[in-house]
Amino acid sequence: MKIQNNILKVHEDDNVAVSIIEEGLKKGEILDKDITLLDDIPFGHKIALTDLKKNDPIIRYGTIIGYAADDINIGQWVSEQLTQLVEPIELDKLPMATKKNIISRNANKKYTFMGYKNEDGTVGTKNILGILPTVQCVAGTANKVVAHLKQEYLPKYPNVDDIVALNHTYGCGVAINAPAAIVPIRTLSNLAMNPNLGGEVILLSLGCEKLQAEMIVPPFIESQENWRKESYAYLQDPDYVGYENIFNHLIEMAVKKLEKLNQRSREECTLADLRLGMQCGGSDAFSGMTANPVLGYAADIIVAEGGMVMFSEVTEVRDAINQLTERAADESVAQALIKEMQDYDDYLAAGQVDRSSNTTPGNKKGGLNNITEKALGSIAKSGTSIITDVLSPGERIKKNGLVFHATPASDFICGTLQMASGINMQVFTTGRGTPYNLALVPVVKISSNSKLYKQWFDIIDFDAGIVVSEQKTIADVAHAFLEFILKIASGEQPTNADRLGLVNDLALFNPAPVT
Amino acid sequence: MKIQNNILKVHEDDNVAVSIIEEGLKKGEILDKDITLLDDIPFGHKIALTDLKKNDPIIRYGTIIGYAADDINIGQWVSEQLTQLVEPIELDKLPMATKKNIISRNANKKYTFMGYKNEDGTVGTKNILGILPTVQCVAGTANKVVAHLKQEYLPKYPNVDDIVALNHTYGCGVAINAPAAIVPIRTLSNLAMNPNLGGEVILLSLGCEKLQAEMIVPPFIESQENWRKESYAYLQDPDYVGYENIFNHLIEMAVKKLEKLNQRSREECTLADLRLGMQCGGSDAFSGMTANPVLGYAADIIVAEGGMVMFSEVTEVRDAINQLTERAADESVAQALIKEMQDYDDYLAAGQVDRSSNTTPGNKKGGLNNITEKALGSIAKSGTSIITDVLSPGERIKKNGLVFHATPASDFICGTLQMASGINMQVFTTGRGTPYNLALVPVVKISSNSKLYKQWFDIIDFDAGIVVSEQKTIADVAHAFLEFILKIASGEQPTNADRLGLVNDLALFNPAPVT
Repeated sequence: MKIQNNILKVHEDDNVAVSIIEEGLKKGEILDKDITLLDDIPFGHKIALTDLKKNDPIIRYGTIIGYAADDINIGQWVSEQLTQLVEPIELDKLPMATKKNIISRNANKKYTFMGYKNEDGTVGTKNILGILPTVQCVAGTANKVVAHLKQEYLPKYPNVDDIVALNHTYGCGVAINAPAAIVPIRTLSNLAMNPNLGGEVILLSLGCEKLQAEMIVPPFIESQENWRKESYAYLQDPDYVGYENIFNHLIEMAVKKLEKLNQRSREECTLADLRLGMQCGGSDAFSGMTANPVLGYAADIIVAEGGMVMFSEVTEVRDAINQLTERAADESVAQALIKEMQDYDDYLAAGQVDRSSNTTPGNKKGGLNNITEKALGSIAKSGTSIITDVLSPGERIKKNGLVFHATPASDFICGTLQMASGINMQVFTTGRGTPYNLALVPVVKISSNSKLYKQWFDIIDFDAGIVVSEQKTIADVAHAFLEFILKIASGEQPTNADRLGLVNDLALFNPAPVT
Repeated sequence: MKIQNNILKVHEDDNVAVSIIEEGLKKGEILDKDITLLDDIPFGHKIALTDLKKNDPIIRYGTIIGYAADDINIGQWVSEQLTQLVEPIELDKLPMATKKNIISRNANKKYTFMGYKNEDGTVGTKNILGILPTVQCVAGTANKVVAHLKQEYLPKYPNVDDIVALNHTYGCGVAINAPAAIVPIRTLSNLAMNPNLGGEVILLSLGCEKLQAEMIVPPFIESQENWRKESYAYLQDPDYVGYENIFNHLIEMAVKKLEKLNQRSREECTLADLRLGMQCGGSDAFSGMTANPVLGYAADIIVAEGGMVMFSEVTEVRDAINQLTERAADESVAQALIKEMQDYDDYLAAGQVDRSSNTTPGNKKGGLNNITEKALGSIAKSGTSIITDVLSPGERIKKNGLVFHATPASDFICGTLQMASGINMQVFTTGRGTPYNLALVPVVKISSNSKLYKQWFDIIDFDAGIVVSEQKTIADVAHAFLEFILKIASGEQPTNADRLGLVNDLALFNPAPVT
């Protein structure tokens, strides 16, 4: 990566570079090598470094991100309109598990954090009482119970970090026997097993709904001798006449859980206990040069130390899938990657769209011309490690190492699926800025450019834009970042969004019909 | 309808009757006409009144609800297992607008209520400040703004009934150009025009999302000279550095809206101003004999007085569609009904399911053996009026009279779509019980059986079970019901769910893919 005279070129083969001037570059300015700007160039947008004929490849990250839609002259703005989308990568001609020479990252020091150790071997970064509705009908009651508990009881249980209603819109009025219904059903079941819930979740039902509690009751609850008594309630229970009665019953049940959870305490854990979900949203042209590579470097260290790091978002890896299949641990992992790509291609095609539906107005304002350019920046967060496993949407983590979880890129759907898979923390990179937050796991937000960080200093947690604005090395920023997230994982300080009390409800992925 | 010796037969042609004994009937008991019960019969379940051979039709509501899966003897329990589903009604052989002799219901008296008259001619039953996010990213901020306003400002504006964050999970990470995306997009736009929002909604954006505010800004906002200043804010606005600044800006904007809304007052309105959405959920075998016919009777009166009454839920009318096409105002209305049925057949088929995906465990416990029996009970709430118009999901009400809105049956999706279409009140019939509630419009909950009402006396608002338990006439109960809902519409008393503070978030219908 080379910064020269206010522009940034990522790879030596690139024929475009990115403007790093927050106010934008002006037409007529002269850059290095006698490049005179032919247009105003907004922050993060691309400048042609050579003359390009119509249909010539436009190269960034050393990879073709599109073809010139018209002749482009050196110094011209390579806008979205001038960039033709490349054909999707064919899925039957991919390198399969061919790459073995992985860069080994040095941890430098022994990183530790203080977490809650669970019986199943996982570690929580928070100690939360969760109330999981089987159906949206009871969401109002879940909210009321949580509000009452937080006001009247939570202060009495200092070791409990939070009480969360895991509300969602699934459970009834859905085609529960459709083949694709397996996705939301396993998502809910697995959510109850998130390490931050410490095995004490309450399942709250109406009673008459399609998603009967038995369909999602997780093993740790099922193994309780009296699980129906201790961890399950339904509003239509004839034993409770009137709303006040069932409400009081729920409070009593929850208080018993709070007592149990309050007996827990944090113990020293290592990077091997970290299960870090990674996501990006509101990406820009810097995401792939600052925040995502920093994350990738940190991810490599966590993987080297035996931890689990997860990346996701099918449409944001689809255009770089050849760079992933070659890093698969073996042929079966590569095949699993390909299957997930194909399934999503089919899913999008059924709705008469394709991968180009990804990229937002904000991405484009941030200098990302299309999904190919976005994907090449996005996969930078996966670092350089071998991919050890692939999960279908909502499946549980089975192996440590670098795991690909085939979720939609939709921020909250991806977040919900990652929580279901069992992450205990998430990092979220953004170039445009988002107040995104999840209730179950801490979400550390990283800005890809310092302009955003300056505007949103009290929402963004960590600025990776300093790689450009202060010319810090990726390695140095990655180590600082690791130190930072372990403080959050230890509960030493809250994320900004947690401090501000900004959280979002779950968003389930339901590819099956509603009824 | 004939009640005899603890069983209830709806139509003279029926060969089954329903047990009306809350504790159930016992094997060996002898009913009228020398019927000896061969099985225990649970509350609401069916008894064979004649011997049936395998494949003989099972008749209820004078209509075939299924075929005997085996020989059935008189006095036997006609269970779900013994009832084979009928083939779906063919959509190309339906009676088209053939029925003209409609029963005219007498209003008896001049019904009025006190409502908020809007400039567009609609009437509100509540006076609410709504904050409508364009994207889920800002839901946390919307919640925080609403909580602050309710605590610090709402008490100062006594004519404002509520402040509501219209949170949802649409807006980004979705295939915004998919053909089916029109459904969630128009739903959000039309929600902002709900009569209970009095034209003072605030659109809250992030900034970079796919669903840009311009795509949903409703006409009444667009016509404001300074709509961007008065009714729109986005978190990424560079004019606001830091979260506190943008938060304070939102509060200021909202307070100006509260001042305007507080100047409004209720005026006398008639049934012609009522836009009543009707829905059922957790239905049982009584729904079609008590709550839904009561609602149908009341609906006929409202329609006769010039009001608008809406029924919905495609899968719950599909099996009785012949009884609707014949009541269509003209051929084009009948064709529109058929088109919506076909579209939903196709939508379900794409997910490898069909109409039989409707019916829940609760429906079945309540005595409904299949979707045909459920549908025949469900359409009873449409009364006997001519169907004046058909809306696709999320479209605005265009005509008064009896309107069919082709929504999914999913409770909260149907509720959200009905609110978007512009209802100012909803009634919800239930046999199993649900705490269902909507934030924008009052929802009056009606029990179909008195057993439920006894258990949930403080959640259900009105018991239509007295048609059976106290042998009241449908007409008498319908008139009492009208009186009751007009008190709610006038704000004289809250519904039980409003009093308890139980509300649910919106649930959008998005038949298009997420990305």
